[in-house]
Amino acid sequence: MKIASLQLKVYREKEKNLEQLAEWMKCEKLQDVDMVTLPEMFTCPYQTELFPLYAEKEGGPSCRFFSDLAKKYGIYLSAGTIPEVDENGRIYNTAYVYDRTGNQIAKHRKMHLFDIDIQDGQTFRESDTLSAGDEVTVFDTEFCRMGICICYDLRFPELAGLMAQEGAKVLLVPAAFNMTTGPAHWELLFRQRAVDNQFYTIGTAPARDMGAEYHSWGHTIAVDPWGTVVHVCGEAEQIQITEINLELVDKIRRELPLLRHRRGDVYEVRKR
Amino acid sequence: MKIASLQLKVYREKEKNLEQLAEWMKCEKLQDVDMVTLPEMFTCPYQTELFPLYAEKEGGPSCRFFSDLAKKYGIYLSAGTIPEVDENGRIYNTAYVYDRTGNQIAKHRKMHLFDIDIQDGQTFRESDTLSAGDEVTVFDTEFCRMGICICYDLRFPELAGLMAQEGAKVLLVPAAFNMTTGPAHWELLFRQRAVDNQFYTIGTAPARDMGAEYHSWGHTIAVDPWGTVVHVCGEAEQIQITEINLELVDKIRRELPLLRHRRGDVYEVRKR
Repeated sequence: MKIASLQLKVYREKEKNLEQLAEWMKCEKLQDVDMVTLPEMFTCPYQTELFPLYAEKEGGPSCRFFSDLAKKYGIYLSAGTIPEVDENGRIYNTAYVYDRTGNQIAKHRKMHLFDIDIQDGQTFRESDTLSAGDEVTVFDTEFCRMGICICYDLRFPELAGLMAQEGAKVLLVPAAFNMTTGPAHWELLFRQRAVDNQFYTIGTAPARDMGAEYHSWGHTIAVDPWGTVVHVCGEAEQIQITEINLELVDKIRRELPLLRHRRGDVYEVRKR
Repeated sequence: MKIASLQLKVYREKEKNLEQLAEWMKCEKLQDVDMVTLPEMFTCPYQTELFPLYAEKEGGPSCRFFSDLAKKYGIYLSAGTIPEVDENGRIYNTAYVYDRTGNQIAKHRKMHLFDIDIQDGQTFRESDTLSAGDEVTVFDTEFCRMGICICYDLRFPELAGLMAQEGAKVLLVPAAFNMTTGPAHWELLFRQRAVDNQFYTIGTAPARDMGAEYHSWGHTIAVDPWGTVVHVCGEAEQIQITEINLELVDKIRRELPLLRHRRGDVYEVRKR
């Protein structure tokens, strides 16, 4: 199974972001991949006040665009995230996934909102405009079950653990770490969630744009279930291709049976 | 608060290990520390068949020796681990902690037994001779609450998470990773548990002895709650001194409030 992750620039105009995606999809490197993954908020600059302005209902124009692309190329498309508005006007940071026929097969609303205030570092309050989702999200492909969560969600080991419990062998994470948390924790988090849960982790980030208000760390990354970094990008626009070796997942789970060694009689992680 | 971690060699003779400890304690570097931490199985070569032969009851000669040392130097002593035998003849890998007056204030029996079979790598089956404990262990000092777990226990994020929930600000881990898992995961695990739980992690390992049957990775380590490696040893005998800055714990928990951002309404980690 081959996954292409696109570290895209984010333009101010939503349509321009969709157009560049259509252009990237024509790339020869992408013609034999099984899945394409996109970054967090890749159609909307990462500014809380813009999320309501860019938001669409589920099944809106951007969703139809993604569905058409997945169908046209016969691929799975993890369409990063876009701002979603529900029937009550609440805004979410939402990831949609489409199958090879263009059907939406998963939807994850960011469950942990990024409200942070680091002295001499990053300050951000997603909860100013966003509401939080409350679902653990896994979906099936013909290769294996996969999980998906968004950026700050990855900081919470319970969520990744629940997806592993539910059978995920690959974890997709559209994300946009910043210039404080990126160098400190980005690679560490992708490696450790991979090691703890013995699955692949794939983080897809926007390219860095120092002209934008929010500076993405970039560094789109793929880590194998032993914690080895298979590939990591720099900060510029780039395509990352990852070969997923599901036999490696099975081998590591057999040799170092962490999932089986958990002491379910002493503690448990559970959905409420 | 100052913690000294002793990366000791492990001799075949139990008494020689206790004698060397008494000698190390005289070291000038140790005269102003508040706590001394020791490695996993530092009085007994790390071989499953030896654990029953070296095992003592709680309060036995080794325990009395540790208690006397703690009292003599007026320090907290996390006495690594030793094999313990209970009234039914079951053997445990047990960590004892003593306060400045020599009172035993904590006891942790390794909860996850290291049974691993890596192709072209390490094979080990602790469960051949050991039984597993089933308690999450925290204890109080005049500085803060601390947690303690043993080596393979650290691989299970639930356990570290429960200790953080119970208020631990420092996690002590007597451990002895091997030459396969050490280079792959040792530093990663200490860093990520520190980042997820925003506490200090201190791993104390035996020095490497290529003449022994089990080759310890060594690399006694201290990591701060931002995931920065404060100090890491090599493979030889060494004393590591760590200054614990509890204000840093509070600052990081305030600025990036991971413990508060956990979605207790969606999932929970709990003791059964």
